[in-house]
Amino acid sequence: MNNVKEYINQHQQRFIDELIELLKIPSVSADSTYKKEVLRTANEVEKRLLEAGCEQVEICETPGYPIVYGEKIIDPNLPTVLVYGHYDVQPPDPINLWDSPAFEPVIKKTKIHPEGAIFARGACDDKGQMYMHVKALELMTKTNQLPCNIKFMIEGEEEVGSESLGWFLERNQKRLENDVILISDTGMISKDVPSITTGLRGLSYVEVEITGPNRDLHSGLYGGAVANPLNILSKMIASLQDENNKITIPGFYDKVEELTPKERAKMAEAPFDLDDYKDHIKIPDIHGEKGYTTNERNSIRPTLDVNGMWGGYIGEGAKTVLPSKAYAKISMRLVPNQDWKEITELFQKHFESIAPKGVHVKVKPHHGGQAYVTPIDGIEYQAADNAFQETFGKSAIPQRSGGSIPIVSMFEHYLSSKTILMGFGLNTDAIHSPNEHFGIWNYLKGIETIPFFYKHFTELYLKEKN
Amino acid sequence: MNNVKEYINQHQQRFIDELIELLKIPSVSADSTYKKEVLRTANEVEKRLLEAGCEQVEICETPGYPIVYGEKIIDPNLPTVLVYGHYDVQPPDPINLWDSPAFEPVIKKTKIHPEGAIFARGACDDKGQMYMHVKALELMTKTNQLPCNIKFMIEGEEEVGSESLGWFLERNQKRLENDVILISDTGMISKDVPSITTGLRGLSYVEVEITGPNRDLHSGLYGGAVANPLNILSKMIASLQDENNKITIPGFYDKVEELTPKERAKMAEAPFDLDDYKDHIKIPDIHGEKGYTTNERNSIRPTLDVNGMWGGYIGEGAKTVLPSKAYAKISMRLVPNQDWKEITELFQKHFESIAPKGVHVKVKPHHGGQAYVTPIDGIEYQAADNAFQETFGKSAIPQRSGGSIPIVSMFEHYLSSKTILMGFGLNTDAIHSPNEHFGIWNYLKGIETIPFFYKHFTELYLKEKN
Repeated sequence: MNNVKEYINQHQQRFIDELIELLKIPSVSADSTYKKEVLRTANEVEKRLLEAGCEQVEICETPGYPIVYGEKIIDPNLPTVLVYGHYDVQPPDPINLWDSPAFEPVIKKTKIHPEGAIFARGACDDKGQMYMHVKALELMTKTNQLPCNIKFMIEGEEEVGSESLGWFLERNQKRLENDVILISDTGMISKDVPSITTGLRGLSYVEVEITGPNRDLHSGLYGGAVANPLNILSKMIASLQDENNKITIPGFYDKVEELTPKERAKMAEAPFDLDDYKDHIKIPDIHGEKGYTTNERNSIRPTLDVNGMWGGYIGEGAKTVLPSKAYAKISMRLVPNQDWKEITELFQKHFESIAPKGVHVKVKPHHGGQAYVTPIDGIEYQAADNAFQETFGKSAIPQRSGGSIPIVSMFEHYLSSKTILMGFGLNTDAIHSPNEHFGIWNYLKGIETIPFFYKHFTELYLKEKN
Repeated sequence: MNNVKEYINQHQQRFIDELIELLKIPSVSADSTYKKEVLRTANEVEKRLLEAGCEQVEICETPGYPIVYGEKIIDPNLPTVLVYGHYDVQPPDPINLWDSPAFEPVIKKTKIHPEGAIFARGACDDKGQMYMHVKALELMTKTNQLPCNIKFMIEGEEEVGSESLGWFLERNQKRLENDVILISDTGMISKDVPSITTGLRGLSYVEVEITGPNRDLHSGLYGGAVANPLNILSKMIASLQDENNKITIPGFYDKVEELTPKERAKMAEAPFDLDDYKDHIKIPDIHGEKGYTTNERNSIRPTLDVNGMWGGYIGEGAKTVLPSKAYAKISMRLVPNQDWKEITELFQKHFESIAPKGVHVKVKPHHGGQAYVTPIDGIEYQAADNAFQETFGKSAIPQRSGGSIPIVSMFEHYLSSKTILMGFGLNTDAIHSPNEHFGIWNYLKGIETIPFFYKHFTELYLKEKN
């Protein structure tokens, strides 16, 4: 891969301008008043893929927003990389906390981004990171260095749960055949510490409802003699974790993947400053499962968090009510080998079993997803690591993320291929928050690094094949 | 006391009509749009007191709604009874659940009230029960049988916490001097089981706030490593009661009045059907402190109830948030000898001490009140019991109520006198709810019974004095 830096230097202003134009379109998938703009963005992405060198480009209708598909097939004997990204963005709310309008991109310098960063909704998540791939394709086609086949699948519903993606995958398995899926929709540790997200946690999300008396009662006349759903729910939730913060649901840990001491030692190499961590979110102390570090607790260990809880009188002042009902939304993050449907059933069975006789309990499963791990001994990972070495001069740190991206296990299910999460954003980029931004240095570094992934993946693929 | 029944029979239609007129005025103290109507009700009460035989009647201004004062002093050597009541009513909401408009009284027969009941907001609480005393005064003056001095103090802020009452008591101690305070603002067990409320529980009401991180976090990225305020608050609340539902706050039970086996046996004589109780509020089972009956749990034992709790995402669907804050409103019902200020301090100290290091905790005391007990060996109680024997043909059952009426201990504080709670309403009268009503039989029975209280109290008072 030659002249990569030269091509980028020559075209960087245009690369920035093109992204800025794309960021001006408010493609908010969650709000139907933006429908026209979302559809306009799909058209724009179609045009950009064609310009960058794709030969078959199509706006594919789905039950929801369309998926933009494009491909450039150069030789059926060469491997195929499928790039996934999304052109929709999060709502800009709360609007009044933005320093400049969310859809009027501006470049400003920050402490972390002295070269400037583009401030706009979607700058990092995911228009900016998706567009790195489009410009990397342009670079490779314009310099006649594309080493393999490439397919693009850019959807418009990622921020609302990718509802049509499974429908599309199921109907396009042949067309989407590939040897690896490449996604830039995650982050890296810091500008000088490249990292590859190798693991994602699964999720089981449930809502529980406790019913005591059939109506709110006077807490003076009935208090003490009738089970109070809020006291009961507190007790039930409290009992789900023991004094070491281990989850007490029978069978919960049965299939949990345990890492070897060597793997844990490797994880511990990632730079981490506990004081910075505490200061960043202003907590007096950390908290979690005994026997694990903070980085382990939020990546390789399953968890149980109450995401919302309510019942009784929650207005100003005092009301002496013994409420009829109490509710909680509870989610469990899962790790490889835990099946989310099985865990949901274990939760439901256990939660119903611990309710005292004085109340009724209902457990309503919301949704879930499987955990995912990319093997670090495969050629996909090796190719990504090599690419980082080419452009950062150092090996990437494999990183487990505590979050869940259900589409990754969906890809494995429908397309039987591994996914590489090669992110260039930073934790401080404020995705999903006001003043989202993406460093220009990161944007250009992504465009520079991606072609090397194609090069190394193709080489490793051919070597393995022959 | 002669010709009581005759007088009532002769005038009962007018007694009913007058009450209905009073019920037509929407004296809702909680809603300032009704201000004129509240004031109009005070004027109406003033007029009725004059008509019934009071000689000094005055609408006394306070920082809030006025208190209507009236008196009829016949002889300084005779005892004085101070009647307390209130002319304000609860808001009629939810309006759509009323079968007929809240301020258009109608008489309908019910299973419990085959003689008919007046349906209107305030019918029982407290216009109806207060007006029984006005009509009892009329009866005694018109038949020349008033045996003692009588004072009336009818306030207009009972439903909003009697905010001006302490102010008024403090400034009118001389004028309000009395030998007993008589109130009809409670209920009786059933139409054939008269009862006297001899005890009220005290109250300590607090609000707690748990703060973890300084902002809501993504539960995937931070879950498991950062203390979740909702999980923590659940654990803290759960720990406030042990497996026997005893409260675990150190010192909480130190001063609790323990009843003798004899007193408990007397309490147990009150008719109580556990199946009816469970069916009435549709609970699968009762629940409470080990070693006590349902009637004991909600009257002579202190309790701790969560009245409201909230935090995190409480909208539709799912959001994977690790909330920054969690809140709860908690109230404790107290029994005689527990000081509400001391209990509030014990709670605060204990609750702060059990918080784990990963969160900050704030405890904000809301308000409180002392418990109260009327001795059943005093002449006040004896007079009330004798009155019930005259008109019901049986002795009244002394009954502890689980609720709190802070004004009763306030009366004891400012006026140094005992209070007799002689109620004629029924639990099924739906006070504070839609379709509030008051049985005509109960209304007339109250007017019939009250004069006998005056007679017996005067006799016992003079006997004790001489």
